[in-house]
Amino acid sequence: MSNVTALPLLEPAEAAPCCPPLTERPLNAEEAERTAKMFKALGDPVRLRLFSAVASHEGGEACVCDISDVGVSQPTVSHHLKKLKEAGLLSSERRGTWVYYRVEPAVLAAMGALLTKAAAS
Amino acid sequence: MSNVTALPLLEPAEAAPCCPPLTERPLNAEEAERTAKMFKALGDPVRLRLFSAVASHEGGEACVCDISDVGVSQPTVSHHLKKLKEAGLLSSERRGTWVYYRVEPAVLAAMGALLTKAAAS
Repeated sequence: MSNVTALPLLEPAEAAPCCPPLTERPLNAEEAERTAKMFKALGDPVRLRLFSAVASHEGGEACVCDISDVGVSQPTVSHHLKKLKEAGLLSSERRGTWVYYRVEPAVLAAMGALLTKAAAS
Repeated sequence: MSNVTALPLLEPAEAAPCCPPLTERPLNAEEAERTAKMFKALGDPVRLRLFSAVASHEGGEACVCDISDVGVSQPTVSHHLKKLKEAGLLSSERRGTWVYYRVEPAVLAAMGALLTKAAAS
């Protein structure tokens, strides 16, 4: 039992969809579990608005302080941004008082490809 | 008041995402409501597996009778396929005993573009 063992890090790559386009073959249980989490994160209207607010903000990042026009409280905004981060769709960095959230372009692109290639075939 | 007025038809286009890429500007409430429904439909692992089973089936369509390997009962399969249809992701057609489900390529492509263009910008 060593206490210097590195903790496993959640890399963006691990959070990215794992799978071929949806028309190629049925997803297996593990693939579906992993990918459904990301779709679910975007499956809430408030969360989707917040996500687009971050994605469209100057520089592709935003803090809670930048997002105040979706009609929910700041703690609710924080809660949803954390959910999006847990799903691997946003990364975050603390700077001073605020945590800044940024879209994960690779993850989004992989999700898009899952659907776009499926549609094209 | 004429009774020959055509009933409004739900065209696939109406079910399609309405919105610019997520990086372009924050979605408004109505846009988010509409688009979140589709992401939510794919946000359940069983539903996502069933969706990929239909999408990857020969000819891009399948009936409940074709899908039996995701470990849920046939009524549950039917229930999930109906949910995907309600979200605008599948269309259906009855032929004899069975209802056949088919992916809506335009809707999928629009969802893909929402994410892919977002990722590229």
